[in-house]
Amino acid sequence: MPDKFVGKMVPTLTEWRRTFHQYPELGFMEYVTTYKLGRQLEELGFNVHIGKDVLKKESRLGLPSDAELRTQEEEALKHGVDATWLEKMRGGFTGLVATWDAEHDGDHVAFRYDIDALPINEAKDNQHIPYQDGFVSTNDNIMHACGHDGHMTIGLGVATFIAENHKDLKGRFTLLFQPAEEGGRGAKAMTENGWLDEVDYFYTGHIGISSLPIGTIAATIKGFLATTKLNANFSGVASHAGMKPELGKNALIAATTAATQLYTIPRHSDGISRVNVGKIVAGSGRNIIPDKGYLEIEVRGETKEINHYMLEEAKRIMEAAANMYDVTVDFEVVGGAEEINCNDDVVSIIKKGSNSYSYIKEVLPTINVAGSEDASFMINKVQDNGGKATYMLFGTKLDYPHHHRLFDFQEEVLAVALETYVAILKGGSSK
Amino acid sequence: MPDKFVGKMVPTLTEWRRTFHQYPELGFMEYVTTYKLGRQLEELGFNVHIGKDVLKKESRLGLPSDAELRTQEEEALKHGVDATWLEKMRGGFTGLVATWDAEHDGDHVAFRYDIDALPINEAKDNQHIPYQDGFVSTNDNIMHACGHDGHMTIGLGVATFIAENHKDLKGRFTLLFQPAEEGGRGAKAMTENGWLDEVDYFYTGHIGISSLPIGTIAATIKGFLATTKLNANFSGVASHAGMKPELGKNALIAATTAATQLYTIPRHSDGISRVNVGKIVAGSGRNIIPDKGYLEIEVRGETKEINHYMLEEAKRIMEAAANMYDVTVDFEVVGGAEEINCNDDVVSIIKKGSNSYSYIKEVLPTINVAGSEDASFMINKVQDNGGKATYMLFGTKLDYPHHHRLFDFQEEVLAVALETYVAILKGGSSK
Amino acid sequence: MPDKFVGKMVPTLTEWRRTFHQYPELGFMEYVTTYKLGRQLEELGFNVHIGKDVLKKESRLGLPSDAELRTQEEEALKHGVDATWLEKMRGGFTGLVATWDAEHDGDHVAFRYDIDALPINEAKDNQHIPYQDGFVSTNDNIMHACGHDGHMTIGLGVATFIAENHKDLKGRFTLLFQPAEEGGRGAKAMTENGWLDEVDYFYTGHIGISSLPIGTIAATIKGFLATTKLNANFSGVASHAGMKPELGKNALIAATTAATQLYTIPRHSDGISRVNVGKIVAGSGRNIIPDKGYLEIEVRGETKEINHYMLEEAKRIMEAAANMYDVTVDFEVVGGAEEINCNDDVVSIIKKGSNSYSYIKEVLPTINVAGSEDASFMINKVQDNGGKATYMLFGTKLDYPHHHRLFDFQEEVLAVALETYVAILKGGSSK
Amino acid sequence: MPDKFVGKMVPTLTEWRRTFHQYPELGFMEYVTTYKLGRQLEELGFNVHIGKDVLKKESRLGLPSDAELRTQEEEALKHGVDATWLEKMRGGFTGLVATWDAEHDGDHVAFRYDIDALPINEAKDNQHIPYQDGFVSTNDNIMHACGHDGHMTIGLGVATFIAENHKDLKGRFTLLFQPAEEGGRGAKAMTENGWLDEVDYFYTGHIGISSLPIGTIAATIKGFLATTKLNANFSGVASHAGMKPELGKNALIAATTAATQLYTIPRHSDGISRVNVGKIVAGSGRNIIPDKGYLEIEVRGETKEINHYMLEEAKRIMEAAANMYDVTVDFEVVGGAEEINCNDDVVSIIKKGSNSYSYIKEVLPTINVAGSEDASFMINKVQDNGGKATYMLFGTKLDYPHHHRLFDFQEEVLAVALETYVAILKGGSSK
Repeated sequence: MPDKFVGKMVPTLTEWRRTFHQYPELGFMEYVTTYKLGRQLEELGFNVHIGKDVLKKESRLGLPSDAELRTQEEEALKHGVDATWLEKMRGGFTGLVATWDAEHDGDHVAFRYDIDALPINEAKDNQHIPYQDGFVSTNDNIMHACGHDGHMTIGLGVATFIAENHKDLKGRFTLLFQPAEEGGRGAKAMTENGWLDEVDYFYTGHIGISSLPIGTIAATIKGFLATTKLNANFSGVASHAGMKPELGKNALIAATTAATQLYTIPRHSDGISRVNVGKIVAGSGRNIIPDKGYLEIEVRGETKEINHYMLEEAKRIMEAAANMYDVTVDFEVVGGAEEINCNDDVVSIIKKGSNSYSYIKEVLPTINVAGSEDASFMINKVQDNGGKATYMLFGTKLDYPHHHRLFDFQEEVLAVALETYVAILKGGSSK
Repeated sequence: MPDKFVGKMVPTLTEWRRTFHQYPELGFMEYVTTYKLGRQLEELGFNVHIGKDVLKKESRLGLPSDAELRTQEEEALKHGVDATWLEKMRGGFTGLVATWDAEHDGDHVAFRYDIDALPINEAKDNQHIPYQDGFVSTNDNIMHACGHDGHMTIGLGVATFIAENHKDLKGRFTLLFQPAEEGGRGAKAMTENGWLDEVDYFYTGHIGISSLPIGTIAATIKGFLATTKLNANFSGVASHAGMKPELGKNALIAATTAATQLYTIPRHSDGISRVNVGKIVAGSGRNIIPDKGYLEIEVRGETKEINHYMLEEAKRIMEAAANMYDVTVDFEVVGGAEEINCNDDVVSIIKKGSNSYSYIKEVLPTINVAGSEDASFMINKVQDNGGKATYMLFGTKLDYPHHHRLFDFQEEVLAVALETYVAILKGGSSK
Repeated sequence: MPDKFVGKMVPTLTEWRRTFHQYPELGFMEYVTTYKLGRQLEELGFNVHIGKDVLKKESRLGLPSDAELRTQEEEALKHGVDATWLEKMRGGFTGLVATWDAEHDGDHVAFRYDIDALPINEAKDNQHIPYQDGFVSTNDNIMHACGHDGHMTIGLGVATFIAENHKDLKGRFTLLFQPAEEGGRGAKAMTENGWLDEVDYFYTGHIGISSLPIGTIAATIKGFLATTKLNANFSGVASHAGMKPELGKNALIAATTAATQLYTIPRHSDGISRVNVGKIVAGSGRNIIPDKGYLEIEVRGETKEINHYMLEEAKRIMEAAANMYDVTVDFEVVGGAEEINCNDDVVSIIKKGSNSYSYIKEVLPTINVAGSEDASFMINKVQDNGGKATYMLFGTKLDYPHHHRLFDFQEEVLAVALETYVAILKGGSSK
Repeated sequence: MPDKFVGKMVPTLTEWRRTFHQYPELGFMEYVTTYKLGRQLEELGFNVHIGKDVLKKESRLGLPSDAELRTQEEEALKHGVDATWLEKMRGGFTGLVATWDAEHDGDHVAFRYDIDALPINEAKDNQHIPYQDGFVSTNDNIMHACGHDGHMTIGLGVATFIAENHKDLKGRFTLLFQPAEEGGRGAKAMTENGWLDEVDYFYTGHIGISSLPIGTIAATIKGFLATTKLNANFSGVASHAGMKPELGKNALIAATTAATQLYTIPRHSDGISRVNVGKIVAGSGRNIIPDKGYLEIEVRGETKEINHYMLEEAKRIMEAAANMYDVTVDFEVVGGAEEINCNDDVVSIIKKGSNSYSYIKEVLPTINVAGSEDASFMINKVQDNGGKATYMLFGTKLDYPHHHRLFDFQEEVLAVALETYVAILKGGSSK
């Protein structure tokens, strides 16, 4: 087994990451990103699956509007995406799955990397390295502000390792390049197309979610909450507020009552629960009884049962608030995640080759962080079938938090993460 | 026609009033009062109707509990009510109707007098004439604090006039001695038994509701609001507030939410509207998710349509508040009144004999006062059938307002009121 | 006195109106409109006052942002507004006052015409005459959808009459071309600069506010409500809704609580009251405890006392809602009006010359309509000083209501209104 | 050391318990109970402290009214309490402290037994052993339904052991017979008089709180929450709801708004939190704007910091709700408890003499139960000074839960508990 692989890859990792960073795309519209990844993985020798093979159509959550999709599909053609590829991806079927059967029998190991960006206007600021070094986003109001450009890069690095060392590896490898992680919208559709059904080991993770220093990684996490994201639209009847107040059916007071009362859902004695109304927009003119109201809500729970309890309570409260003012309400689930319970077994797998580490300084068995992740759908599917799974964290100094327009990470973390995955491949899957 | 009738009656009026004052009874439990009135009216020669002939069973609102009824029925026997009479009145069938057909054909004229008292502890205080002069209430926590003792007295005076002068009068006379006016509970049941169906003229009124001086009367009123009185009972499931908050179905928060939101019913552009939650009682122990909640509510409207609008809004809001917290709610209508629109025609009838007045100093055509009265059911029934009706006010100085434990009126108002009714009988019905 | 004046003016009125219609401007940014009016009035011989002479700086309500003002000031230069004029109007000092002292002593009569437009996208539709006849708005998303283009036209017509007939008229004339009527923002600043202080008679009015047919006018109105328009900004502290909910200071729940509870202000027994929350916007991301909340509110009252009561209640409720969630709230009054009580005396003045009417078919003494108008500040100021004032309505068929993108009126109403003002000038002020 | 002590005591324990059971007294009114205990402890040779020596006057929470206190003080005289003793206890200074200095130097060990009963009407029912065997409560509506009759009995047993074996024991012993545990009202006042200041070991516990079988005990507990119990009184101004709604200052809507909004306090990320409004009573008559509102509230927290956070949030919300409706609110803290963290060291002390147990079958090191206890004030005081403390549970079958009118326990648990305390005395303190 080559020991120098990671060191050799460092300049390539940096180049890949910076290229991805320049062309960020929002969830279910990663047409260019998917195409670039796909072409490289094909060249490495992987079987690449795209389009409806990748995502179950009706399980995708929070899909953009048709108009948005079409606009980005046109852009994709202008940016060189092959028309045949695009045809398969049209309508928000982005992301891909790359598979490789190694020479020798062995476990089925899956790795997952998320690829979408955020609707954030990246800072054009000299203190911000992507701007200073000329790889700032070229797409207005879109930015890789959560490190997914790094995640994809690591994924390509892992793919390169597998391709170069396939003769020494055993088992099957599935690399999931997942769209629309932000808001918890894409993992479910990938999972429900069966990609995790026969997986023995599943690994994914995140750059810099905690304040671990560079070189430190956590092999497992604790404390991620199950969550459901939903929107509510209240609809009533407008009327002149001075002349005919009694003829209005006030969607604003229904929405404000709902918003206030949502916070009254009882605490659950089985564990942590959360509810938040993140946004409300209602009404039009000052002298009009408002006929429209809109809420963005999320609920969370320490277990999926608690999350379900919160969701059902929230829906009943909102329906009642609508009835209270004789208006209607419709819900749309636009995202979600389940809780995550990592398997401790993976800690020893990761640590197995630790004497040969160059970039990893310390492996913590676990770290407790709050958060929610749709990789949970994959993890729980694998575990339901008897497999083992983990969600790892890769430390890096962060001057600005995730989702900030000045977010950036230490690029050295790419090597740390790649070394981790190589250790997993060597430790868990090499003959 | 005798001119001296009223003057001759003055000592008798005072005596009657003081006797009634000593034995006040609550609504639908005026067993002794009804019996005394009935006997006197029989002696005068009236046909007296009691029991189920008087009140439509299911139209009585806010009936006392069976236990309360039984207790007062026992008391009635002890106080000399004839067992045969009592048998007819049992179960809250109090009040009576006394009828007389005059010698000559003519209009059917109805007069109404309310007979119930209030759950108020009458002042035992030297400044209070009923105490000073020894006719204070002998029934604990019950008091004629709204002047109905005076109303009955006037009614007996009117009956006496009819009996003495029947040869000179024409038409039919119906005297309604109505139970349970307080809370708007008795008039509807009398009306729905048909007593007002063929009435040409209807007169009723109140002592001292406004601050008119003694001797001044208003022939009609304006501004009385339609109203509905209702109670709401919320019922949920108790749970330990510390250990299992999520298992409770919280009837207290449903009731408090309902109470707060009831005040948000939109104003109505067609006229005055009102809503009030007069009382809330919910919950048991501090550390228990409450399973019971109780509200006392009233709505009002300048028209019966506005009152209906308020009632329907109120009920929908309370039902929604119950659904919001997964509890149930039941409503009970315990009282009500309609709006009153008096017929101006009665003004001239009342004024017709004004040159012979001894006690009346001034007749105002109308006065604007807020208030609600279940005589409205009778008035509206008469008017619906083409009859004329009014609600009059008889001025008197009041040192304390109605429903106060020191309430008292100038007894001279009894003569003023009797003179008014005599003027009506002479003016409208004498040949 | 010339009898043919109005007839002669008809083609000119139409032309003026259509020209104004093509260049609508929003409140406090009527730079081009003011300039055009001013130049014409100067040519007619009026003394024209502009800029800070017209409006009291700090009494202007709901001023646009500096950026908006600057943009429109640049536009004004491009559209030919003289730089010297613009300098005086800069910063939202639009509108003008034109004065004329007649040859003979007499009453001081003031007329007021409002000149601003609305942020509405005018219909480009063949059924819409302004589009069909080629005088549709040339300013995107701005439209004269309330008839102020007509009001200005009438004002110029009145000015022309005064200029042509000044030798036959007595007294002083003040023509107020008021900016920013929409939202009740401009009249107060004109009034507080003293323009109404010595006025004996004040006349203003509106085209087609009711459904009076063309030719019918109402000399006075009843039922306009006093009103205050205010915005509330709630400000708290954001926090991660999953990880640190207790660290947030939730401006959204403060705003939604305020919005709901505002509707609970008790009805006022002295007359009509209203409250409406026309708009709410709060929060940013779904998983963030919201740190911002914004409400647009109006209160109304049948009297200024009731309006004041509503405003004080509303502010206390919002402050309490902010305190409830440990956030702050700031209010901004952005508009308002007082109640209007017209002087009946003006009816006879208007009717005086009625035998010579050509366009007016009927003069109603008064009409009862709900509504709110900042001309009320002027009317009340005149009346406070012993003058007489009225608000008139000029009937016209309306296929679409005011503030609708298809709003239009029968142009014949311009002649009706001009004839009314001429009648006033002849009847009230001619020697 | 005598081995047969517990067995010998069994009949006495039963007799004592049944005697206490027959004369239950409510918190701060345990005059007879305190006197009986005090006399027995004096006879055993203890120094007995009563009255103001025992309780810090102003630290007592939820004191009964003066009238209630006086009534029970009269009862106490009738039931044979010595007048001199009573004089010291007057005004709610019940409970006592009994101290003993052993022959030999050693640790200061404190034991605490609570002595108050509950306002529950004990079942007179043949399935209920206290009724069947003739020792049912003789005080109407008061019942030992939480096992404190057993606790006192155990305390007397322990005192007897100390008195009989003082020559073999070392150290100092303080027996705290605490009043008013129910509602968390008495322990604080005892603690703040200094009785726990120099204690090395502190032991207390409860009969049958969990469903442990008879013979099983838990040496420590986990999961008790800190709590504060408070009442809120809202005070406004009444007004006639139909005639003058705007003149009312509505204490009911302030209280209902407070009650609803209290449930919106954000969850705390550091641990469990709770809030409950257990009771609301507001308003008087249906047609009156309510001027009074009353709430009974409790908050809880996994730590005292979280409890404090909940309390401060709750108070701010209620104050704001009062301000919202221009009424006032006053709070009264009527009870409370802190969280409990037992010292594991005591497990080995309890188990030390386990080979000689007759009644104890199993000692669990700890058990996790929710609950709140004012012994927490004592425990935390001891620990703050470097001492060790625990709260134990003594298993018994319960056919009905604590605070039920059919509550009863297996009397054998008295021997189990006494054996536990004897083991502690032998293990921890014998020479």
